[in-house]
Amino acid sequence: MRKHRLLVVLLAILCFAACLAGPAGHAGAAPQAPEQAIRAVLLSQQEAWNRADVDAFLTGYWNSEELSFSGSNGITRGFAGVRERYKKGYPDQQAMGKLEFSGLEIRPLGPDAALVLGRWHLTRTIGDVGGVFSLVFRRFPEGWRIIHDHTSVVAPSSDSQNEH
Amino acid sequence: MRKHRLLVVLLAILCFAACLAGPAGHAGAAPQAPEQAIRAVLLSQQEAWNRADVDAFLTGYWNSEELSFSGSNGITRGFAGVRERYKKGYPDQQAMGKLEFSGLEIRPLGPDAALVLGRWHLTRTIGDVGGVFSLVFRRFPEGWRIIHDHTSVVAPSSDSQNEH
Repeated sequence: MRKHRLLVVLLAILCFAACLAGPAGHAGAAPQAPEQAIRAVLLSQQEAWNRADVDAFLTGYWNSEELSFSGSNGITRGFAGVRERYKKGYPDQQAMGKLEFSGLEIRPLGPDAALVLGRWHLTRTIGDVGGVFSLVFRRFPEGWRIIHDHTSVVAPSSDSQNEH
Repeated sequence: MRKHRLLVVLLAILCFAACLAGPAGHAGAAPQAPEQAIRAVLLSQQEAWNRADVDAFLTGYWNSEELSFSGSNGITRGFAGVRERYKKGYPDQQAMGKLEFSGLEIRPLGPDAALVLGRWHLTRTIGDVGGVFSLVFRRFPEGWRIIHDHTSVVAPSSDSQNEH
């Protein structure tokens, strides 16, 4: 009987411990320096682009049919669609040029999502081009990946085009 | 002694219940139909626009210096900046026309954030214009608000412009 009571007391202590550890354990599972991880993904993308390795560049994107890319051509759907868009738009190293991301702002949207604003610039012999992007990142077991990209070209002194 | 044991048993049961209820309770605190709330904000914006009431339209945005709007003119900062941009770009009812949002896709990014993709179209006597947008919403005590807007004009048959 005494043993039985001891067991119940131990059970109670364990439950208390579980209750206390529950939320703390959850918080402990929150991302470790998501900003650093996201910056690393973007740096890796930039390096891949500058090696003219579009497929390595694309590993920064979520490999899913739900991936989306919005721009002046509308919305492109799925990883395969985004890949095709890049392959078509940037068929060779001359078209790709040298990519530079700048002005990165990483805003957490919860433990597993973040909004990233930034600027992109391609230095090219065929003419530079650049603009702004808004990326939504999500954290997956394999790391942070872009689940949505909205990219715009910004003319060097554009201030005319109406957008809703 | 018997009472004491009963107390410990009750305590154990309560702890079990708390452990079980913990995560469920947390899930219960998740937003109630964020999609509905977000759709209501966008519908309200559309109605305000179609009354040529830019200030009512702007209540869908986060009234903060951290609000941002990206597009072909780059990044506009702060609620005041976004307001100025709209007032300048759409000085009268003729410029505003009739707004219609369509193809809304609302993707939760956690309990308090969501990504919204969609299309916009302005029917105007001076010429229609339209495109796509990506909105990031956050939930505030006062409701869901747009914290970032990235909008692009899409030409009716545009498939030429390179974007990184």
